[in-house]
Amino acid sequence: VPALTAAEAERLDADDPLRPFRRRFRLPPDGPYLDGNSLGALPLATMARLTATVEDEWGTGLVTSWNAAGWFEAPARVGAKIARLIGAAAEEVIVADSTTLNLWKLLGAACLARPGRGTILSEPGNFPTDLYAAEGVARAFGRRLRLADIAEITAAIDEDTAVLLLTHVHYKSADCRDMAALTAAAHARGALVLWDLSHSAGAVPVDLRGAGADLAVGCGYKYLNGGPGAPAFLFASAALQPSLVNPLSGWMGHAAPFAFEDGFRGAEGMRRFLAGTPPVIGLAALEAGVDLLLEAPEAQRVAKSRALGQAWIGGVEALDAGFTLASPRDPALRGSHVSFAHPQAFAIVQALIARSIVGDFRAPDLMRMGFAPIYNSFADIARAIEALRLVMAGEEWRRPAFSERGTVT
Amino acid sequence: VPALTAAEAERLDADDPLRPFRRRFRLPPDGPYLDGNSLGALPLATMARLTATVEDEWGTGLVTSWNAAGWFEAPARVGAKIARLIGAAAEEVIVADSTTLNLWKLLGAACLARPGRGTILSEPGNFPTDLYAAEGVARAFGRRLRLADIAEITAAIDEDTAVLLLTHVHYKSADCRDMAALTAAAHARGALVLWDLSHSAGAVPVDLRGAGADLAVGCGYKYLNGGPGAPAFLFASAALQPSLVNPLSGWMGHAAPFAFEDGFRGAEGMRRFLAGTPPVIGLAALEAGVDLLLEAPEAQRVAKSRALGQAWIGGVEALDAGFTLASPRDPALRGSHVSFAHPQAFAIVQALIARSIVGDFRAPDLMRMGFAPIYNSFADIARAIEALRLVMAGEEWRRPAFSERGTVT
Repeated sequence: VPALTAAEAERLDADDPLRPFRRRFRLPPDGPYLDGNSLGALPLATMARLTATVEDEWGTGLVTSWNAAGWFEAPARVGAKIARLIGAAAEEVIVADSTTLNLWKLLGAACLARPGRGTILSEPGNFPTDLYAAEGVARAFGRRLRLADIAEITAAIDEDTAVLLLTHVHYKSADCRDMAALTAAAHARGALVLWDLSHSAGAVPVDLRGAGADLAVGCGYKYLNGGPGAPAFLFASAALQPSLVNPLSGWMGHAAPFAFEDGFRGAEGMRRFLAGTPPVIGLAALEAGVDLLLEAPEAQRVAKSRALGQAWIGGVEALDAGFTLASPRDPALRGSHVSFAHPQAFAIVQALIARSIVGDFRAPDLMRMGFAPIYNSFADIARAIEALRLVMAGEEWRRPAFSERGTVT
Repeated sequence: VPALTAAEAERLDADDPLRPFRRRFRLPPDGPYLDGNSLGALPLATMARLTATVEDEWGTGLVTSWNAAGWFEAPARVGAKIARLIGAAAEEVIVADSTTLNLWKLLGAACLARPGRGTILSEPGNFPTDLYAAEGVARAFGRRLRLADIAEITAAIDEDTAVLLLTHVHYKSADCRDMAALTAAAHARGALVLWDLSHSAGAVPVDLRGAGADLAVGCGYKYLNGGPGAPAFLFASAALQPSLVNPLSGWMGHAAPFAFEDGFRGAEGMRRFLAGTPPVIGLAALEAGVDLLLEAPEAQRVAKSRALGQAWIGGVEALDAGFTLASPRDPALRGSHVSFAHPQAFAIVQALIARSIVGDFRAPDLMRMGFAPIYNSFADIARAIEALRLVMAGEEWRRPAFSERGTVT
C-alpha cells in the first residue's frame, strides 16, 4: 500500500458516505484525534441531552422523574439500543456500573451456573481488569484462574473449565478472535464463554446470537462515545438468563425493589444484573452517543474503519523508520486500532502528542492509534503520517517532553 | 408544639442564617419539595460545572484530561471533601460506584479480615440493599447473615460475628443510632462495624473518628445533592486500611493501573477500593453538590434541620387527623426526616403530591417527609401543613389519583 497523500485523502473523504457525521462531534481544534478506542469524542447532541436531564428532569421533576422521565427504564432502554450494535436481542442487554463490575457479575454467575467446575480460563496479557476481576471471583467462589496462550486456548478448555474469558478485540494487538469457533469449542466441553467487547462494540461486526454466545460485557466510553467513565453494558443470552444468579445482589436487581423486603429475590431477565441505583446522568450521555452511532449504517462504519487502518499501515511502513506492524495486516482479523512496535515508541508517541496527534503508548514498545469511522477522516490519517514523518526525520523524539501520561485504554 | 402559622414561618425564615442558600438551588416552581432525603435538589452551580467537564474537559481535552483536568484524582479529591462532613480524615474516604457495591466491597473486606468468624449481623427492616448485599457477600464467602432486632442487637454480637451492619439513620423511622456505643459493643467482642450513612451524611452530626468507627458507606444523591444515581462513598479507618482487601478487584484499584500487569496488587490506602474507570461526569456533579454543602456551617444545618422537623411534627399533630408519630420526638435522636403512620398514608401522600407537596409513602402506612436545611424553609413547612389540613378536611385522599409511584428512597 503506498502512503496516503493529502490529495488522495481529500478524494476519499469526498466519497465517504459517513462524512456528515464528523460535524456532529466536538473535536480538538488541532488534532487529529486518533484515540477514540480509549475515550470516544463528544457528540454535539450530548450537551443538550445532559442539560435536559439535569435542568428539567432532575431540577424540576426531581423524584417524579424516576417514572415520568423514564429513569428507571434507562438501563434496559439503552441496553436495547446497544443490542442492535452487537447482534443481540433487545432483552439480552442492560446497562449498569462499570465493565469491571459487570465482569464480576457474569464471571460469578458463570461459576454458580457450573458448580462442579473449578477453573476460570483466560489468556495472559488479556486486558488487566478482566484478569483482576477473574482473580477476585476465583477467590470469592473457591475457583482458580488459569491462563493459557491464545494459540493453546482451545486445547486448554477441559471438563474443569467453568467459563472461558476472552476479549474479542485485544486492546494491544487488535487481534479479533473467532467468536463462533471459540464459543463452539467451549460448548463442546460444557464450558461457558464470556466475551469482553470493549474494543469491538461499535467498531467491528459483532454477532453474539450468530456466534451462539453466552455472556458478554463492554465499555460505554470508547466507540460508543458515552463520555469518560460512562456506564458499561452486559449481555446474557435469552436461553441462559433464567439459570443465572447475579452474585452482586442489590436492590435494583430485586424482583420488587419497592416492596422493601428483607430477603433477596432476583428480578426477571437482565434487570437482575442491576445492583445499586442507576447512574442517570451517565446513562443520558451514553444514550446520546449510542443514538448517534445507530444512525450510521454498520456496513459503512466497518468498511471505513478498515480503509482508515489500511491507509495508516501503508503510510507508516512507507516511512521505513523501524516500525514493525504488531496488529493483523488482514483488516478482517483486526479491530479498529493498529499497533506498531518501535524501540522508541514511548518517546515517539509523546512527540506526536506535542504535534497534537493524539494516540497511545502501550508498554513496552507499542504506538497504538485508533480509528473511529464516524468522526475520523482520511485527512486525519494523511496529517498523522506527515507528522510522524517529521518526528522521525528530526531529533525531537529522542528528547521526550512529557513523563508517563497514564491514559485509559 | 403549636402549629406553625405563615406569619411565624416568615419570621423564622427572616432569622435563618442559611436563608441565602435556598436561592442557589433550582427548586420546583410549585412545591414545597420535602423529599431531599430521597433525591436532593439541583444546585445552580452544577450545570456550569457539568458544562465545563463535558464541553471543555471531555470535548476538547479528551484523554489528556485524565491527568490535566484531575479526573484520576476525582475519587480521592471528592472523598476528602465528604470526609469533612462525616468526621473522617481526608485519606479515609473515596468516591466510587454505588452504595450497594461499596457495601459489597466493605462487607467482603470485613469477612476476609475476620477469617474465623462466620456471621454478618444486621437488623430486620434495615434498608433492603444493605441486606441484599450482605446476603450476596455471605454466599460468596461462605458466611451467614443473621438478623436481630435493634433492641437485642448488642446481645446478639458474639465471637462468631465478623461484622455488624447498621444504618446510622433508619430510612423509615429516622431513628439515629448511637454510633459510639454500638461500635464499642462490637469491638468488645472483636467484631467490626459497617455504618450506612446514606440518611446521615450532610444531615445530622456524624463523627466517625470520634466514635472509633471501622467502616462506612453513604449515598451521593440525598443530602449531598449529587444528582440522580450519583456515585457513592466509602470510608475505612486509617488504622484498618492496611489489613483490608477489596474483594471486587479491578484495574483502578491496582497499585499500578498502567503497568498492565496480569496479577492483581492492591493500591495503597482507599484507592484499593476503586474497581472500574471512575464515572467522571457523575463525580463532577457530586463535587458541585458537596462544595455547596461545605459552605454551610454544620451547626447551622443541624439546628435548622431539627427546627424544621419539630415544626412539622407540631403542625401534623395539631391537625388531630389520626396521624401517629413514627419517628423519635427528640430531635437529637432523629435524622432529618420524619415519618407519621396513618392507615390511609398512601392515598394521603398521593393527594399531597397532587397539591405539589412532594414527600414519600413508605409501606405499609408511613407518610415520610424529609427536610434539607440548606434549601427548605419554614414557609415550606407552613405550606405543607396547610395543604395537609385541606387534604384531610376534604374527600380527595379517599380517591387517590395516581398508582404506586415507586420513588427511590
